[in-house]
Amino acid sequence: MAVYFLSFLVCFALRAEAFALEPRLTWQESEISLTRFQVQDVYNYSTLLLSDDNNVLYIGAREVIFAVNSQNISEKKQEAYWKVTEVKNEECSRKGKSKQTECLNYIRVLQPFNESALFVCGTNAFQPVCDILELNSFKLAGKNEDGRGRCPFDPAQSYTSVMVDGDLYSGTSFTFLGSEPIICRNSQHLSYLRTEYAVPWLNEPRFVHADVIRAPENNPDGDDDKVYFFFTEVSVEYEFFNKLLIPRIARVCKSDQGGLRTLQKKWTTFLKARMICHSPENNLIFNVVNDVFILKLREPVIYGVFTSHLNNVGMSAVCSYSLSTVEDVFTKGKYMQSATVEQAHTKWVQFNGEIPKPRPGACINNEAKAMNYTSSLNLPDKTLQFVKDHPLMDDSVAPIGKRPKLVHQNVTYTQIVVDQVTALDGNTYDVMFISTDKGMLHKAVSHDMDMRIIEEIVLFPDHQAIQTLLLSDKQAKRYIYAGSSTEVVQTPVAFCEKLASCAECILTRDPYCAWHKGKNSCVNILAESNTDRLLIQSLNGDSSHCPASSPILFPPPVTSLVSSMASELHPSLSSMPLEVQSSTDSDVLKLLPPFLSDQGQLVQVHATFHLFCHGTGEYVLNSKTSLLD
Amino acid sequence: MAVYFLSFLVCFALRAEAFALEPRLTWQESEISLTRFQVQDVYNYSTLLLSDDNNVLYIGAREVIFAVNSQNISEKKQEAYWKVTEVKNEECSRKGKSKQTECLNYIRVLQPFNESALFVCGTNAFQPVCDILELNSFKLAGKNEDGRGRCPFDPAQSYTSVMVDGDLYSGTSFTFLGSEPIICRNSQHLSYLRTEYAVPWLNEPRFVHADVIRAPENNPDGDDDKVYFFFTEVSVEYEFFNKLLIPRIARVCKSDQGGLRTLQKKWTTFLKARMICHSPENNLIFNVVNDVFILKLREPVIYGVFTSHLNNVGMSAVCSYSLSTVEDVFTKGKYMQSATVEQAHTKWVQFNGEIPKPRPGACINNEAKAMNYTSSLNLPDKTLQFVKDHPLMDDSVAPIGKRPKLVHQNVTYTQIVVDQVTALDGNTYDVMFISTDKGMLHKAVSHDMDMRIIEEIVLFPDHQAIQTLLLSDKQAKRYIYAGSSTEVVQTPVAFCEKLASCAECILTRDPYCAWHKGKNSCVNILAESNTDRLLIQSLNGDSSHCPASSPILFPPPVTSLVSSMASELHPSLSSMPLEVQSSTDSDVLKLLPPFLSDQGQLVQVHATFHLFCHGTGEYVLNSKTSLLD
Repeated sequence: MAVYFLSFLVCFALRAEAFALEPRLTWQESEISLTRFQVQDVYNYSTLLLSDDNNVLYIGAREVIFAVNSQNISEKKQEAYWKVTEVKNEECSRKGKSKQTECLNYIRVLQPFNESALFVCGTNAFQPVCDILELNSFKLAGKNEDGRGRCPFDPAQSYTSVMVDGDLYSGTSFTFLGSEPIICRNSQHLSYLRTEYAVPWLNEPRFVHADVIRAPENNPDGDDDKVYFFFTEVSVEYEFFNKLLIPRIARVCKSDQGGLRTLQKKWTTFLKARMICHSPENNLIFNVVNDVFILKLREPVIYGVFTSHLNNVGMSAVCSYSLSTVEDVFTKGKYMQSATVEQAHTKWVQFNGEIPKPRPGACINNEAKAMNYTSSLNLPDKTLQFVKDHPLMDDSVAPIGKRPKLVHQNVTYTQIVVDQVTALDGNTYDVMFISTDKGMLHKAVSHDMDMRIIEEIVLFPDHQAIQTLLLSDKQAKRYIYAGSSTEVVQTPVAFCEKLASCAECILTRDPYCAWHKGKNSCVNILAESNTDRLLIQSLNGDSSHCPASSPILFPPPVTSLVSSMASELHPSLSSMPLEVQSSTDSDVLKLLPPFLSDQGQLVQVHATFHLFCHGTGEYVLNSKTSLLD
Repeated sequence: MAVYFLSFLVCFALRAEAFALEPRLTWQESEISLTRFQVQDVYNYSTLLLSDDNNVLYIGAREVIFAVNSQNISEKKQEAYWKVTEVKNEECSRKGKSKQTECLNYIRVLQPFNESALFVCGTNAFQPVCDILELNSFKLAGKNEDGRGRCPFDPAQSYTSVMVDGDLYSGTSFTFLGSEPIICRNSQHLSYLRTEYAVPWLNEPRFVHADVIRAPENNPDGDDDKVYFFFTEVSVEYEFFNKLLIPRIARVCKSDQGGLRTLQKKWTTFLKARMICHSPENNLIFNVVNDVFILKLREPVIYGVFTSHLNNVGMSAVCSYSLSTVEDVFTKGKYMQSATVEQAHTKWVQFNGEIPKPRPGACINNEAKAMNYTSSLNLPDKTLQFVKDHPLMDDSVAPIGKRPKLVHQNVTYTQIVVDQVTALDGNTYDVMFISTDKGMLHKAVSHDMDMRIIEEIVLFPDHQAIQTLLLSDKQAKRYIYAGSSTEVVQTPVAFCEKLASCAECILTRDPYCAWHKGKNSCVNILAESNTDRLLIQSLNGDSSHCPASSPILFPPPVTSLVSSMASELHPSLSSMPLEVQSSTDSDVLKLLPPFLSDQGQLVQVHATFHLFCHGTGEYVLNSKTSLLD
């Protein structure tokens, strides 16, 4: 006898593999057409520089520099090829490097030089050179300056640089083998300065970021502008089973001129400290800093993305630091000193002796000036010798809130940029854009002490690692630029217009987005003006102010049933309240939750989550459409 | 218009959520009826002692000791209640401890005393006492000896003990607050000995195991029997962001009598060393030892289960050590010494000075006797002072193979026992039984350098933590006993008879199991004798020697289709070869793979894996049954 079963079963994974802790949207490539820039046979789009004034994005890639329209990066304006000579390429390959890859010219420094020129450096087949790129002609001046100390030899080596008042501050390595790390300043009018080549100063560092913080005008201490460097290095102060990596912040003063005898042509203001990014309650230790972004407010905030090299089964964290905490460590903290134990072992301990005056490593501030020290060149030998021997602070820089803002599993964060947006509630929100080594961009918003990932954008569907991230925040039309080894992609900071319903617009809790009652659409508030009374925004996700929807009472005229195959992941799923709405088209049964907020269930990240919808009778369930529209 | 779909869809997860890296069986409670022992209102079945000679298992629980039949633990033979007095209970609760839980008598020591008595100790409402349990009457002798140093005060504190020639060696804490850790010996005829109360000797230890290793008879060094202790403590030699835990092995010599002046009534042979359990390739560091089992072969092997307290997102490891490596560290290794740096900091470094003779910490062996030292009592002061100050070795004990035998994610291993079985190939296999904190027992077999989990047994379906594990390996009928807070469960070491087909019997690769051609069933080889030519065993999982099955050619008379929802987990699933067999009952279509070995697919651990079987026409698919039978 034939047995007939009347059933239709829809198995689908909720969009974005459901929500991770908080409701979160994932934007796939197909939903948002991102603007891309790519030139055939050009690789390693690793250096980005924005000129917001004239809407240009400069892109340093392998053997070429591009200028593209920053509003639409697919529009190439100019290009300047900068290839290694055949002779250099051969020479490099004879030293055992790859002729096809390593022995080419990787643009590593792209900094504003003056209004009509850029300062550029490239690895140049392991013989780094720097040059001036004239912007009008978009041609290199052909200076071919020695790039050592400003640009790495090896494209695989870490580097960072920042241009301050025409002077290039860089962290890189000084030798062919990459064995001599250096933080130095190359200046037209100030003296060349560098770090001592000594383990206590820099110990196998991997540089990730450098930036300048200007001293407030008329500051009471008469303090100087400071340049901060961020890197991960091998700890000298801790003893572990094996080499222990440690995240550091270091700083130098802009007016430093080195010492006269001691520390001649060396920094007299180089101090460094540990950055702490631990989660104490579960003993998670993030000891590798991958990138830093400084939000330059009146009280600057330093955001860092971290991973761990200890028992790392794929976790990343974001920690933030206030600059005043950093400065307290450098200006008031204890120093560390090394001591030789039993003639053979160097151990680092807190220095408890008398600290010379002026304070070692301090800028030439009012205190120094009051003691008649007007330049680092005439600082007393005691102060200089002390800072030479004690560049490491004993105090650590603790994060804001004493814990990470965000800890995320199964992800490696590579870069971070932070935007600020003033929402309709009058509060200013920090919006973090964090890239992963798998081509994703996470967008997170700080609420009180917590940080929530509200969106996930697939920048590189082929899972390429994102190597560079840049934010253009000057205009209403804000963009993020991300560079990988094969292309640059441009994404707007928000996709408000893609959110079709008021509930969805509110539920994303995106401070950029609000529901426009007049236009009946979700809009970017930065693009609107004087429409406050027409806009609905509720960053706590309360969509009750939305224009009323028309829920239909449960139970519906037909039987509906929701069960969850993965109910062990979250027991509440099997009891998820549902409202069923009869469509005017009587053949279609719509399974529709009353509010999207009801779908904000806690399910595990990356857990696929199934809704099995059994309909009996003559109705066709079309749950996927109804849940997503 | 009504739309009818003729379809039947079966979604099921392959048994055991498929296989984890290697084909693995999970035995659910319903499949194997395990023997259990539980008495109402009795909790904390934490101490187990086996008397294999007379088939008795002694169980120490809260306020009671049981004797049960070790072949069937549900059969209670005797019981002896040992309750705290009302006075003690009150007194304890006045000190701030819980009257209902902590202030009761938890049996913590259950050791053989002589042929007719056990030595037992209990926490006794934070006033530990010891007594003698007469086995004939099963009554306590009422000695009520002070149990300090032999039994913890607090049932939550760690402890371990071993009885050697009538002397109790124990690791526990000596005070009400648990602040004074101690390793001591209580003896009738030897002197009482204990550790110094000093950080270099024991630093917040958590004791997990103690055992004796006998010196070989007539050993050329004239060496002594040694008692080993295993614990996790706070490192003194490493400096980290915070307290760093470290796994240790310590040992004392049985003939130790303490010093005459220096180290009077203290161990003169107490030495300890780090145990290393790292996975170097991915920098996994397992620094907490949870349990140890010593396989007492001619060359003993120490098996330990480890977790990590650094970035621990749920990982465990098994490391094994050869005793000769351990002994090399103690008898030939360098010592550590502490040094004071800058008057304030204690740092530990390798000792490179001259080591006194006889070697500090060594047993009174032939070398010492040749120097006329016949007892620790007449050892020179230099040797004694040295071992008092240098109990920690600088060398570490490295695991066999320099890496863990097994690393497992999303699991916390609590206990381990190891059995040995000689398979039909003549080789002897170590079979590990490892318990988890969620009521599971993993059975793993060492193949070359690797270790494979071949079975998983659900001992406690309610996911109780397994606190104690004991192996009975004396007979052909071998059992594992596991204690939790509410019951004891008994499981055979293998479930050969549950494996219905030859292929399944071979595929589990269980050294206990072989296919009996005569009986046409899977049998435990330990229960068989002289039937070698009738038994098929192939521990590499090659089932080609199995009697031929009768496959039916594909395609079958009806259309069948197999697709995999989770094909991204393992692409080969969608192309899994299937044979379909028509049953005599023409209404039933059986979906049956030709050999179970074809089902041994690599899928991710804990990944649920779906087979969607669509049948059209008048057949009912009953794939679940056919795949599992």
